[in-house]
Amino acid sequence: MRLSQMLFVTLREDPAEAEIPSHKLLLRAGYIRRIGSGVYAYLPLMWRVLQKVSQIVREEMNATGAQEVLLPAMQPSELWKESGRWDTYTQAEGIMFTLTDRQNREVALGPTHEEVITAIARDMIRSYRQLPLHLYQIQTKFRDEIRPRFGLMRGREFIMKDGYSFHTSEESLKQTYADMDRAYRNMFTRTGLKFRPVEADSGAIGGSGSQEFMVLADAGEDEILYTEDGKYSANTEKAVSLPPDAVPSTFTKFEKLDTPNTPTIETLAQFLKCSPTQIVKNVLYQAVYDNGVTVLVLASIRGDQDVNEVKLTNELVKLGDRFGGKTLLALTVPDAEAQAKWAAKPLPLGYISPGLEDSYIGKQEKLHPKFLRLVDKTAVDLQNFVTGSNESGYHVVGANWGKQYPLPGDVVDIRKARPGDRAMHDPSQILQTARGIEVGHIFQLGTKYSKAMGATYTSETGEELPLVMGCYGVGVSRLAQAAVEQNHDKDGIIWPVAIAPYHAIVVIPNITDAAQVEAAEKLYADLNAAGVETLLDDRDERAGVKFKDSELVGIPFRVVTGRSLQQGKVEVVQRATKQSQEIALDQIVSTLKQWIQEAIAP
Amino acid sequence: MRLSQMLFVTLREDPAEAEIPSHKLLLRAGYIRRIGSGVYAYLPLMWRVLQKVSQIVREEMNATGAQEVLLPAMQPSELWKESGRWDTYTQAEGIMFTLTDRQNREVALGPTHEEVITAIARDMIRSYRQLPLHLYQIQTKFRDEIRPRFGLMRGREFIMKDGYSFHTSEESLKQTYADMDRAYRNMFTRTGLKFRPVEADSGAIGGSGSQEFMVLADAGEDEILYTEDGKYSANTEKAVSLPPDAVPSTFTKFEKLDTPNTPTIETLAQFLKCSPTQIVKNVLYQAVYDNGVTVLVLASIRGDQDVNEVKLTNELVKLGDRFGGKTLLALTVPDAEAQAKWAAKPLPLGYISPGLEDSYIGKQEKLHPKFLRLVDKTAVDLQNFVTGSNESGYHVVGANWGKQYPLPGDVVDIRKARPGDRAMHDPSQILQTARGIEVGHIFQLGTKYSKAMGATYTSETGEELPLVMGCYGVGVSRLAQAAVEQNHDKDGIIWPVAIAPYHAIVVIPNITDAAQVEAAEKLYADLNAAGVETLLDDRDERAGVKFKDSELVGIPFRVVTGRSLQQGKVEVVQRATKQSQEIALDQIVSTLKQWIQEAIAP
Repeated sequence: MRLSQMLFVTLREDPAEAEIPSHKLLLRAGYIRRIGSGVYAYLPLMWRVLQKVSQIVREEMNATGAQEVLLPAMQPSELWKESGRWDTYTQAEGIMFTLTDRQNREVALGPTHEEVITAIARDMIRSYRQLPLHLYQIQTKFRDEIRPRFGLMRGREFIMKDGYSFHTSEESLKQTYADMDRAYRNMFTRTGLKFRPVEADSGAIGGSGSQEFMVLADAGEDEILYTEDGKYSANTEKAVSLPPDAVPSTFTKFEKLDTPNTPTIETLAQFLKCSPTQIVKNVLYQAVYDNGVTVLVLASIRGDQDVNEVKLTNELVKLGDRFGGKTLLALTVPDAEAQAKWAAKPLPLGYISPGLEDSYIGKQEKLHPKFLRLVDKTAVDLQNFVTGSNESGYHVVGANWGKQYPLPGDVVDIRKARPGDRAMHDPSQILQTARGIEVGHIFQLGTKYSKAMGATYTSETGEELPLVMGCYGVGVSRLAQAAVEQNHDKDGIIWPVAIAPYHAIVVIPNITDAAQVEAAEKLYADLNAAGVETLLDDRDERAGVKFKDSELVGIPFRVVTGRSLQQGKVEVVQRATKQSQEIALDQIVSTLKQWIQEAIAP
Repeated sequence: MRLSQMLFVTLREDPAEAEIPSHKLLLRAGYIRRIGSGVYAYLPLMWRVLQKVSQIVREEMNATGAQEVLLPAMQPSELWKESGRWDTYTQAEGIMFTLTDRQNREVALGPTHEEVITAIARDMIRSYRQLPLHLYQIQTKFRDEIRPRFGLMRGREFIMKDGYSFHTSEESLKQTYADMDRAYRNMFTRTGLKFRPVEADSGAIGGSGSQEFMVLADAGEDEILYTEDGKYSANTEKAVSLPPDAVPSTFTKFEKLDTPNTPTIETLAQFLKCSPTQIVKNVLYQAVYDNGVTVLVLASIRGDQDVNEVKLTNELVKLGDRFGGKTLLALTVPDAEAQAKWAAKPLPLGYISPGLEDSYIGKQEKLHPKFLRLVDKTAVDLQNFVTGSNESGYHVVGANWGKQYPLPGDVVDIRKARPGDRAMHDPSQILQTARGIEVGHIFQLGTKYSKAMGATYTSETGEELPLVMGCYGVGVSRLAQAAVEQNHDKDGIIWPVAIAPYHAIVVIPNITDAAQVEAAEKLYADLNAAGVETLLDDRDERAGVKFKDSELVGIPFRVVTGRSLQQGKVEVVQRATKQSQEIALDQIVSTLKQWIQEAIAP
């Protein structure tokens, strides 16, 4: 393509709408334009990058025997009601766009396709002889994000590869799950990105096990915890660890102390000159289930630790049965208005006791009969601990479970693992931290959807059994931007060769110089004919502008038909290293072909 | 791909949901499944067909220098309000899906992308030096059809190629429009379909000229009128012609006659023993503009002719200024309820006079001040004609414009052309009729969108001028089904080779016969290695079932490793002709390659 004929518009200034480098660079280099909140147009260069990423994904999926399909974005609400996720996706998370058609039917715009694919499987799969089966698509998805941001990183319309596998058994599922783990490592390796597979929480998708693939980048939204021995890495949402040892308590006697102005662990520990590990912190949450029941949750945890709300959510989903709820619609920290509804008197925030319900909530039992106490494992073994007194400005010290406070039956892991914690698999390994961008996620779903939607098959022995399912996603458009976030410098983008929109750009420094033009035209034609995807900068612009643009846009190899033409040579500059060398005209095609080959299949 | 490992499910019976052959066959052969009203899943075989069609479209578009992009499906309502089409698309035609996001902003799901692309052009095009420019995409579109039907023919979610070109002048636009005409002829020729380009109405897209491309098929929704000399063809909505000559009137004296029970032209002509061409028929419509004004339209036309409501709509859009309306929201035949609002007394339906307003509408002028009379060209030259009297059961005869009735100023062509009419370009040519499926439509938009949305460029002389635009669509998923509608027989689909999901299928009649299996496996491997896209029917099924399935699915070439193996031969059956021949094993690959080559590039 000739730049003179292309939609090629670069900006000198960073656009105000962008915060992180990759978003700024994609806008400045003319890859994308914002059309609405979280909604972007993919312009010609971006379209090529997306096609390259898609093709790598497609090839690795096809190599596993998965078959490509295309499912509709518009999904009848009935399917989501069958699976039980309509409320979660329209209310609890509220991230699904819905609309009403001219027949007044509710229609969802698919953020994911478990329901649709399960409906197809229910219709088309009859026998174990059709299994295993793996269908995937590369498709535009929709999510009504609370905070769309960072360009393609968290958009409201984006491109995903999503695949769904069907099995007769957990073993068969695990086999495909392992195949996908390998296929994903292959595809991310082939894109040329540094990435890390991590243990992950399954969230609203559900199922028994899942793994994410993170592209490593400082601006990543996710925190990863990992060990140097390579044996453990997890999303911080999911990570487990051994917490630091607690310092034994020095308070041997139970008593209530005047502790003015100590609503935080930090101020309290300073005032009492004790370790935060001696304190039991009590955090109040409010959970709303789909049956309308509100549950007050008092979570007790060791003072130096924090509640991981993803883990807490998972516990509350598991406990839903106890309250008659199927779906957890919301988990919030109750604000003043919420407290006023059920607290007998203003809550002593910062001074809450493990026995809060007795004096504050119990009185109002008729209004709010549901109260749940959870104790994190870190708080269970503490003795003679410090904790709130239910009276502002006062704490108790020397307290013990089973004496002053009954130990709740629900002892759980709701603790946020942290960098510096010891690893579970080997306490000599210390958790390290890195930031990542989630570009892949694979799930063992089991029978969650097939049971809910009645998708069964007939087994070899004639039994009708629910299909065992897995699902596997790749964020195609997100990956494209993640590549930029991981690979750029002050001058612009540095595309990995495998997903660069073009391999090379031939720059004519001076288009009034006939020799330069002639040499460039020949190189442009020869390179393209040889399969080197090449741009020609034939614009009537100064050489400096052309060099700056080629660096901003990030094409891996720049060929300049400049002064050395007289010696039968051209300058070739590698974008990543900025190394420049003179290469004979008749060597250019073979040299670039070799470099590209080496970069794409290392 | 092995059928034993594929999602391959065929149905013996026609599904009740389908009416036309192509829809039945795509369902029966496992290409598509219905997910909701007008919404389909494209299964693995269909996905391959869609990719082949898309690739042909892409290659022909790229060959013209057009650049591929991908625009968002979600479009802010603001853009549609800027262009003035929000009301048309959400109310008048009402075919646009809209939703409200979590910020309570209205968002449209794009049925077309003029607004989005014009916003991008406004942002990125500054100078004449960037022009001409042509951007296109292959994308999922959404339309809330009143009657979704016929599978992919009229779906609510479908795949389109839509391209938009930008120019400095009408001449440049016409140049690209001509390039597109050629590109479209190339692409439809390459798909292997019989098609016809026709003059077309531009509808809600607007602009000055447009042409449709019709795939010829009996079940086509569109009627085409054409002449045998190949010089004229048009969609019936747009077609013009010379009507048959009128028979001179025998009524020389103006008088009112008692004509009981003659509310139709047929009964009246029979009663008066006159030709329908002597009658002026007066048809009442009601037009509603976006400024709230309702206009009563009385359209007079020669009795043997019918009003073409598309032409009438276009006239009313043009006349909108006269009534202060920008957008025509609705054109309807007023029902009793509507009539009751403004008619002074019950209307004498079937007996309406060209002077209707005097006695029936004029009295109510305050309520309904807008009244418009239009006369079709066919009615203007009539003398001593028969027409309604404004009194039920009575007509007048021997009437003349300018005597009994003033001739309205608005003489227009609102007549429906018909098969049998004489062609305008050569009255010796008689219009013929054919049915077609619209698969392409190209438009000269002019400055409609650029003016409305302020998309300008700076000309060579420094002037800021509106961009001149064209737009060009191909119905990708519709074309795939149209191919089936045009190419099938009682046994199933007959794919043109260029868009068949696979070129060949190797059938093992008996999978317990080791020699058959061995030969088939080798052919399957060799054919795929040679670029012949080949399926292997290795299922444990009877040979008859396999043959029937291969015919239903419509793979162009079937290779059967049957009895002739003993002579070192296999049977090859061509799907289209059902011709069978024995070919030596070592000739199969070269023979099929040659046949495919001949079929794809004839």
